[in-house]
Amino acid sequence: MPYQLNPDRYFSVNHDQRNLARQLYELVKDLPIISPHGHVDPALFSRPDATFGTPTDLFIIPDHYVFRMLYSQGIPLESLGIPRIDGGSVEQDHRKIWQIFADNYYLFRGTPSGGWIDHALHVNLGVQERLTGENAQKIYDHIQDRLNSPEFQPRQLLASLNIEVLCTTDAATDTLADLQTMRRQGFEHNIFPTSRPDALINICAPDWLRQVEQLAQVSGIDVVNFNSFLQALQQRRGFFKQMGAHATDHGVLTAYTNPLSEAEAGTIFRHALAGVASPQEEAAFTGHMLIEMAHMSIEDGMVMQIHVGALRNHNPYIFHTFGRDKGADIPIASEFTQNLKPLLDQYGTDPRLNIILFTVDEDVYSRELATLAGVYPSLKVGPPWWFHDSPNGMRRYFDQILETAGFYNTAGFNDDTRAFLSIPARHDVWRRVSCDWLAGMVLQGRIDEEDAPEIAADFACRLAKRAYHFE
Amino acid sequence: MPYQLNPDRYFSVNHDQRNLARQLYELVKDLPIISPHGHVDPALFSRPDATFGTPTDLFIIPDHYVFRMLYSQGIPLESLGIPRIDGGSVEQDHRKIWQIFADNYYLFRGTPSGGWIDHALHVNLGVQERLTGENAQKIYDHIQDRLNSPEFQPRQLLASLNIEVLCTTDAATDTLADLQTMRRQGFEHNIFPTSRPDALINICAPDWLRQVEQLAQVSGIDVVNFNSFLQALQQRRGFFKQMGAHATDHGVLTAYTNPLSEAEAGTIFRHALAGVASPQEEAAFTGHMLIEMAHMSIEDGMVMQIHVGALRNHNPYIFHTFGRDKGADIPIASEFTQNLKPLLDQYGTDPRLNIILFTVDEDVYSRELATLAGVYPSLKVGPPWWFHDSPNGMRRYFDQILETAGFYNTAGFNDDTRAFLSIPARHDVWRRVSCDWLAGMVLQGRIDEEDAPEIAADFACRLAKRAYHFE
Amino acid sequence: MPYQLNPDRYFSVNHDQRNLARQLYELVKDLPIISPHGHVDPALFSRPDATFGTPTDLFIIPDHYVFRMLYSQGIPLESLGIPRIDGGSVEQDHRKIWQIFADNYYLFRGTPSGGWIDHALHVNLGVQERLTGENAQKIYDHIQDRLNSPEFQPRQLLASLNIEVLCTTDAATDTLADLQTMRRQGFEHNIFPTSRPDALINICAPDWLRQVEQLAQVSGIDVVNFNSFLQALQQRRGFFKQMGAHATDHGVLTAYTNPLSEAEAGTIFRHALAGVASPQEEAAFTGHMLIEMAHMSIEDGMVMQIHVGALRNHNPYIFHTFGRDKGADIPIASEFTQNLKPLLDQYGTDPRLNIILFTVDEDVYSRELATLAGVYPSLKVGPPWWFHDSPNGMRRYFDQILETAGFYNTAGFNDDTRAFLSIPARHDVWRRVSCDWLAGMVLQGRIDEEDAPEIAADFACRLAKRAYHFE
Repeated sequence: MPYQLNPDRYFSVNHDQRNLARQLYELVKDLPIISPHGHVDPALFSRPDATFGTPTDLFIIPDHYVFRMLYSQGIPLESLGIPRIDGGSVEQDHRKIWQIFADNYYLFRGTPSGGWIDHALHVNLGVQERLTGENAQKIYDHIQDRLNSPEFQPRQLLASLNIEVLCTTDAATDTLADLQTMRRQGFEHNIFPTSRPDALINICAPDWLRQVEQLAQVSGIDVVNFNSFLQALQQRRGFFKQMGAHATDHGVLTAYTNPLSEAEAGTIFRHALAGVASPQEEAAFTGHMLIEMAHMSIEDGMVMQIHVGALRNHNPYIFHTFGRDKGADIPIASEFTQNLKPLLDQYGTDPRLNIILFTVDEDVYSRELATLAGVYPSLKVGPPWWFHDSPNGMRRYFDQILETAGFYNTAGFNDDTRAFLSIPARHDVWRRVSCDWLAGMVLQGRIDEEDAPEIAADFACRLAKRAYHFE
Repeated sequence: MPYQLNPDRYFSVNHDQRNLARQLYELVKDLPIISPHGHVDPALFSRPDATFGTPTDLFIIPDHYVFRMLYSQGIPLESLGIPRIDGGSVEQDHRKIWQIFADNYYLFRGTPSGGWIDHALHVNLGVQERLTGENAQKIYDHIQDRLNSPEFQPRQLLASLNIEVLCTTDAATDTLADLQTMRRQGFEHNIFPTSRPDALINICAPDWLRQVEQLAQVSGIDVVNFNSFLQALQQRRGFFKQMGAHATDHGVLTAYTNPLSEAEAGTIFRHALAGVASPQEEAAFTGHMLIEMAHMSIEDGMVMQIHVGALRNHNPYIFHTFGRDKGADIPIASEFTQNLKPLLDQYGTDPRLNIILFTVDEDVYSRELATLAGVYPSLKVGPPWWFHDSPNGMRRYFDQILETAGFYNTAGFNDDTRAFLSIPARHDVWRRVSCDWLAGMVLQGRIDEEDAPEIAADFACRLAKRAYHFE
Repeated sequence: MPYQLNPDRYFSVNHDQRNLARQLYELVKDLPIISPHGHVDPALFSRPDATFGTPTDLFIIPDHYVFRMLYSQGIPLESLGIPRIDGGSVEQDHRKIWQIFADNYYLFRGTPSGGWIDHALHVNLGVQERLTGENAQKIYDHIQDRLNSPEFQPRQLLASLNIEVLCTTDAATDTLADLQTMRRQGFEHNIFPTSRPDALINICAPDWLRQVEQLAQVSGIDVVNFNSFLQALQQRRGFFKQMGAHATDHGVLTAYTNPLSEAEAGTIFRHALAGVASPQEEAAFTGHMLIEMAHMSIEDGMVMQIHVGALRNHNPYIFHTFGRDKGADIPIASEFTQNLKPLLDQYGTDPRLNIILFTVDEDVYSRELATLAGVYPSLKVGPPWWFHDSPNGMRRYFDQILETAGFYNTAGFNDDTRAFLSIPARHDVWRRVSCDWLAGMVLQGRIDEEDAPEIAADFACRLAKRAYHFE
C-alpha cells in the first residue's frame, strides 16, 4: 500500500473539532493561493522552458531551513553543495548530497521543514514511500523524472498550483529584468515585484556606496545629497509601482523610529557619502528613513512591510564562507510600543497608511502587536514569520493575537519562502491550522458556527488580499 | 427559535472535561460576585432613580474596548459619540451610533468584548436574535425598553446580579461625595472606595500643583514640604479607610523601587513645588513613594495594588482630542525581580504587608510573578489584567502561574471594568474558564477530584475575598 | 480501598491520545534513569549503612521547593527546622514539622512539588491514604518504618530505582572525598562528579580569596597570576575527569561573553588578588572565563553546562538567616543571541565543543535557544530548568523548542534535584509528558507512528546519554 500523509494532519486529536475542521478545510483548500511576500527567484519564470534542475536543486541547495538543520548536527555545508563565495570546491554530485539528506532525514521529525517536504514528496510529486537512506536513489530518480516532465516547468506549476498572486522581493535598485522579459513574452499576469531598499539604508555596510551609485544609475538621478537620495528612492518606487508592485519591504534589527531634522539627516548622509558615518548615525538614519518611507507610502499607496528583529549572519564562519541568507540569522527581543511611537505620532492615524508588522519575537504578540494593531488604523499584524511559520507557531499566533487585535487587523498568511515547492505545503498547513483553530472556537461557543465558513475563507485568502490591496 | 448562547461556552471541546467543568460550574455560577477592583462610576448609585440611559450609553460610549476596535478599522470616534475635550461636535444620535456598531459587529468575532456583549444582550437583556445591521434598531428598542424598566435601575441591578462587593477607584483627593450621599440615604452596604494617589505622585504632570493644592484642601494639611505631603496622604488614607476602603491602587509604568534619603526626597519635592522637577527626579520619586506607601500599608492594613506597564495615551491624536482612558494605552515589557527588590528588602517579609501585582506583560508570569509570589509572604499575583482578561488570557494565567505560585498566592478575579453590564459577563467567563481548567487538572490526575469543588469556589470568590480582606 | 494515584496522570484528557501515550509510556517507563545533572549529597552513599533519617529529613529540610511554598504563606522557616547559619534555635521535633507540613499540604495542590511528593509517598513508600493533618503522624510512622528498612538505604535505592547514571555537582576545589571513599570501598560504578568552578570566577565574592587559596592547595599550583590560575583550573578539570566527570557546570546571571586580551585578564586578576576588583571587572572576567572554559572543554572533551538567569538569594532575610540555596532565587530575563556571539564566533563551529544551555526564562525558548541550537553544531538546549521542570513547563518546552531545534539538538532530561526521592518522580513526569506529547504529534499526523517508540526512548534516556557522552 502506498505511503500516505494523514489526511487529517494538523487537526486536533478531538473528534468533534477534527470533524468540523475538516468540513471547514474542504471549503477553502482549493481556493487560490495568495503569496504576497516571498523570495522565489523570478528567473524561474523568465524562460518558458526553465526547469527546477535536480531534486537537490529543488529541495536542498536553496532551502536554508533544510541545510541549517543538517549543519547543526555537524554535516559540513560543502558536502551539501552549498556554493562557497570564494568559489572553493563543494560537492557537485547531487545524488551524493541527496543520500546524505535521506540518511539524516530523521532530524526533521516533527519540524515544519519535515512537514513541507513530506507534502511536496507525497502530494505534489507522487512519491509513494517514506524517504529513507535505503530508497534515497530510487526516490531521486522518481523526482528527477517528474521534474523533467512538462507539467513541472515552473510556469506550468504556477497555474496548476493555483497561485493567483506571487510577489517576489527585489532590491530597490533592481531593474526587474526577468519581469520585463516575462512582460515582453506576454507572461506576467500573476507575478508582482516588491521593493526592498534595505541595502540603500544601511549606510555603514561595505557596499553602500556601490548601492547608491547603482541607485543613481537606474533612477537617472544624480545622488549628491539627502534630498536627491529621497528623489531617487521615490523614482524607484514609481518604477516598481508601474511594474505592478503593491508593497515595499523593510528589514530592520529594531523598530526604532525617530524623526531627524532636514539638517541632521543631511549631515548624516554627507558622512555616509564620505564613508565616515558611525553605527550610531546609521541607527539614527534608519529610524528616520522608516518615517520618510511611511510618508512615501501615504503618497503612493504602497503597503509598507516592516520585518523586525533578525540578527543577520550570526555565524561568521557561514557568512564569510557561504554568504548571506544561509539560515544563520538569529532573533533578538523586539520592542514596538516605544520604538514605533514617533512614526505613529506623525502618521499612525492617517487612513492612507498601511503598515504590516512582522516579528521573530513571539513575546510581543499579545503585549505589543495585538494591542497596537487593535487601536491604530494604519497597523496590521503580519503572519507568523520565519521560524514561527509552523503549526505551533500558528496556534500561538491565533491564541495570542486574535482576541485583542481581532481577525480584521491581521494580514492573513505569507509563505516567505525561497523554496518554490514549499509554497503549496505552507499554505496548506496554514489553512489546516486556521480551520482547526476556528473549529475549536466554534465548539467552545466563541464563534458562531454560521460565521465560520466566511472566517475560514478570510484566513485562506481574503485577509491577505485586503491587506496587500489585491481586491 | 430564539438565539441562545452555547450553554457550554468556554468549556473544553473534550466531552469528559466539559462534563466535569459543567458540574463544577454549576456549584459556583450563582455564588455572589466579589468585584474588588473596578471603575464603575459611583454616581450611578447616588440617586435611587438613576438609569443607564440609552443602549449606546450603556455599551459604547463608556467602553474603550468597544470603540478602540471600531476606531482601529477607520471609524472616527466622533461618529461614535465619544465626547471631545474641546466640546467639538460629535454624533448625538444614539440610534445612528448603534447602527454603526451593529453594522461592524463582525469585528468583535472571537474577542472578549464580543463575548461580554453577547452575554449582556442574551443573558441579561433577553435579546433573542444575534445583533446585525438589519435588526439593529429593533434590538435598540428592546434594550431601551429594558433599561427604562425599574429592575434595570443600577441599584436594583446590584442586588439582582448578586454583587456582594463592588469597589470603585477614586482619586486620593476625592471627597467621595457620591458615597457620602448613598450613606446619607442609607444605601451603601456593598460599595467601597479605593484610593488611587497616582496624580499626586506624578510630579512632572502639568496638573500636579493643582492636585497638591486639592490634597491640602481636602486633608486640611498645608502641604509645604515632603513631610507634610506624607502627612496629607496619610490623612486621606485614614478618610478612605473610614469610608470603607480596603485597598489602595497604584499605576506605574515600571515596578522600579528605590529608597531615597529624607534629604533627597525633600529636595525633589521642593523642585516639584517649584515646577522644576526633571523626569529623572519623577522616576526616583515614584520609586521612593512605592516604598513609603508600602510602609503606610503596613501601618493601616490597606491592601496595596500595583498595576505595572501600561504606557498611557499612546495615540496623541486620541489623547489630545478625547482625553485619557480611551483605549490607547499600550503595554511595554515589565520587570519585577530587580525593580521590586529594594521594596521587598525593606518590607517584603513583613506579615502585615499585602501587595497585589498586576501586569500587562504575560512574559513575566512564569519567570517573575509566580516565582516572587511563591516565596514572599507579602506578595500575591493579581488576576489577568486588561487585554488579558479573556478566555485565552485566563488559560495562560492558569497554566503559567499556578504551578509555581500555587493557588493560594493569587488574588482571584477582578473585572476592572468601566462598563457596568460587563461585570456579570466577565465573572461568568472567569468561572467557566477556571472550572474548565480545574476539570482538566482533575482528569490529568493533577488535582484530586474531591478537592475540586473547594478550589472552584476559591477561584470564584474566596481568593478575592481573602486577598482584599473581605472575610 | 487504598488511595492510588491516577495511573494515567499527566496524559491528555483525550482518549485516543491517552491510549497511545500509555502504550508509549509502557515502553519506556522502566528504562534506566540517567541523571546527568543534580545536587544529591554524595555523602549519602559514602557509608554502606547511611540512611535518609526521618520523613522530615527526607521531604522537607533539604527541599527548598517545599519550604519556600510554606514560607510564602507566612510559616517561619525556623518552625520547619531549616538550620540558621548563626546556629540559632529552630524546631528540632521532626514530628511537629511534619504536622505543619501535612496541615498545609493543600498549598501544594496542582504544583509539581505536590506531584513529586505524592509519587514518593504512594509509589515509592507505599502510603495508602492521602496525606492530611489528621493522618499526619500515622503516615510519619509508616514512612519512618520504611526509611529504617534495609531496602531504603541510599545505596540500595540507587539499584532498586534503576539509576544507571547519577552525577553530583561539586565545587571545582572539592577533593571528592566521598567519592574517593566509595571508590576505596569498591562502590562507585554509577556516581560521577561534576566540576562547578563558579566560586573561583566570582572575583568580587567575599570568600573568593579563600577559594583561590583552596584551589592552590588542592591543585598544588601556586596561584599568583592569571596564567597560574588557568593552570590550576585545568589541573582540577584533569582530576575531575580522572574521577569520572563528564561535564562542568557554570551558573551565571547573564550569558554575556567577551574575550579579554591576556593583559586585560591579567590586570583584572591582579586587582582581584588585591581585593580591589570592581563589579564591572567581575562581569568582564566572567564573560572572558566562559570563553576560556569553552576552550578547555574543547581540549579535554568535558561537556560544558551553562545555567543562566537566576538572581541568587533575592530575599536578604532568608539569605542572611539561612544561607544560600534556600528557594529564594528569582529569574530575570535572559539574552543569548548577542551575549553568546563572541564565544560562538571563536569556538561555536568546533565539532569538539559541547555546550548545553539552561534558562529560567521561557521567553527565549522559541526566540533564541531553539534557533541557536538549530544552527550551531556546538550547542544543545538543556531540559526545562528549575521552576519549569513541571508538566506545563515541559509542554511549553516541547511546543516552543522542538519545531525549530529538532529533537536531536536537545539534551533530554535532568532532574537537578537536592531531594533524592524526587528523582524517580521527576523522571516519571518527564516520561509521561513526553510520551503524551509524542502521542499528540502522531495523532495530528506530524510524527510517523512507527517512529514514536524510538523517539520516546530518545527522550527517556538516549538524548541525555548522548549529550553527556554516556554512550
